[in-house]
Amino acid sequence: MKHLATVLASFLLAVPATAADQLPSWNDGPHKQAIVSFVEKATTEGTPDFVPPAERIAVFDNDGTLWSEQPIYVQGAFIFDRVKALSNQHPEWKENEPFKSLLKGDLKTALAGGEAALAEIVMATHAGISTDEFSQIVKDWISTAKHPKTGKLYTEMVYQPMLELLAYLRASGFKTFIVSGGGIEFMRPWAEAVYGIPPEQIIGSSIKTKFELRDGAPVLMRLPELNTFNDKEGKPVGINQHIGRRPIAAFGNSDGDLAMLQWTCSASGPRFCLYVHHTDGEREVAYDRKSHIGQLDKGLDEAAAKGWTVVDMKNDWMRIFAYEK
Amino acid sequence: MKHLATVLASFLLAVPATAADQLPSWNDGPHKQAIVSFVEKATTEGTPDFVPPAERIAVFDNDGTLWSEQPIYVQGAFIFDRVKALSNQHPEWKENEPFKSLLKGDLKTALAGGEAALAEIVMATHAGISTDEFSQIVKDWISTAKHPKTGKLYTEMVYQPMLELLAYLRASGFKTFIVSGGGIEFMRPWAEAVYGIPPEQIIGSSIKTKFELRDGAPVLMRLPELNTFNDKEGKPVGINQHIGRRPIAAFGNSDGDLAMLQWTCSASGPRFCLYVHHTDGEREVAYDRKSHIGQLDKGLDEAAAKGWTVVDMKNDWMRIFAYEK
Repeated sequence: MKHLATVLASFLLAVPATAADQLPSWNDGPHKQAIVSFVEKATTEGTPDFVPPAERIAVFDNDGTLWSEQPIYVQGAFIFDRVKALSNQHPEWKENEPFKSLLKGDLKTALAGGEAALAEIVMATHAGISTDEFSQIVKDWISTAKHPKTGKLYTEMVYQPMLELLAYLRASGFKTFIVSGGGIEFMRPWAEAVYGIPPEQIIGSSIKTKFELRDGAPVLMRLPELNTFNDKEGKPVGINQHIGRRPIAAFGNSDGDLAMLQWTCSASGPRFCLYVHHTDGEREVAYDRKSHIGQLDKGLDEAAAKGWTVVDMKNDWMRIFAYEK
Repeated sequence: MKHLATVLASFLLAVPATAADQLPSWNDGPHKQAIVSFVEKATTEGTPDFVPPAERIAVFDNDGTLWSEQPIYVQGAFIFDRVKALSNQHPEWKENEPFKSLLKGDLKTALAGGEAALAEIVMATHAGISTDEFSQIVKDWISTAKHPKTGKLYTEMVYQPMLELLAYLRASGFKTFIVSGGGIEFMRPWAEAVYGIPPEQIIGSSIKTKFELRDGAPVLMRLPELNTFNDKEGKPVGINQHIGRRPIAAFGNSDGDLAMLQWTCSASGPRFCLYVHHTDGEREVAYDRKSHIGQLDKGLDEAAAKGWTVVDMKNDWMRIFAYEK
């Protein structure tokens, strides 16, 4: 009877009660209502808009959509810390850019070398080790690294309303995916615990790997070579490669997500596209059209033209982070 | 109460009754027993070998493991038919290899150009159209194309014992994936109906795609450029890229699957690796160490050395195809 009780409990939990119960950190208003209307439409059997569970695919950007990306991408902070940790093994870094400036904390000069410099940094800090080793490094780092302004763990800098939205969609039979420009292997070690999204539903940028036998045991070695760049037009490409089915709902916060939203909302049937607009300079950071990180310019115009939902963080979200009162 | 009844019904269906019920096309013996022992071990709570459901990942090769690959890979037959269908638009093919010989049905001469010729054929028949268009072409073809010897639809040439195994694993909380050297977009349009495996759990070889706006509508165009080669050492690479978690069970039939089985069975915890050995020249085709298609040579040796399960199709399978009496 224990199993039966478990099944009954999960059955009861899976029944959408009222939306207010499931999205408690969202203020009532047209944006919350738009989410609920879409979900109810897609999940009501016997209507023309009903979507079978297998096709209920929802894709979420990560940086700036599920967690904070200001004042620096979290993976950027990871890179800084890795360069410091590895510098003992690389005495030459004290003399050579971009590492020389990075070690002094001078990001601007470090990145003066443009994409080539950035690539050199990423490869030095992400490659040359096995996938298992990299995963452990990320796990160790994320369990202690803290946000420079709030002093909170990065994994506490996730948006509570978006966690509720993820759970609401899953309870409504959706499969939730992350589709990020960030590193796929940087997200997988912690995303399941933080977002409830398993590794096989995480899509991100990647470097190439190679199967090798090391002392007779198979390993996948991380190579210093880009495999996929999963941002902008790379997002629909990554979605097709990993999911093979067009999502019916997409959530982003920047122009880097625009192609993903276009891809999602241009097909027939019920579709939902949403931008998180960073409008709260007090509880978080206010930025959009002119920002270097998470620029939202073309996306705002297209959202207005196409009637996509644009969440106003300041007014739509009762709480931003779970640690707020 | 209708929903409650549905939940209770699925609960009852999901309870593993006896293995004999779930694998009716498998003859009793050590190989069937090895499968059942592994599944029971991995799913019995409170034991050291218990594997949480999220980690119950099982990967299956397709050609020769789930469906017949003799006398020609099914995707090879698709290519022949595409070349014929497209030849009107390409009058030059009558003069130029490899198409000239292909159109005459002379595969040997067509492939005399080696990998370059094969690549030219694949690109001509698989690229230059959108992903949606290609998917429709595959759907149309697979719904009518028939096996040259049995006259059955290719989708009837699937191994009934393996369908039962897929269902048994899923009923035991496993997530089943296909990891094939064949084309990812060649399998996705029909694999869900035939194997119960959704597109996001299909991994295969792929060509590059590009996001474009065509008359204002986004499409993904298929480019004549290889993206991933998902065979041999490419299988663990593809598994890591798509799943991000090491499988605990792997099923193959050829040396092309060896790296996948090594990757799966070399880690700690309960592991299960199985080779399907084509030993039945009457009901199917008998081949192994010397075959050009689906060669199983190194794999047989390694299976013996490591104690992997080697299914003897002739003796272990009561039925091979569902259409048999």
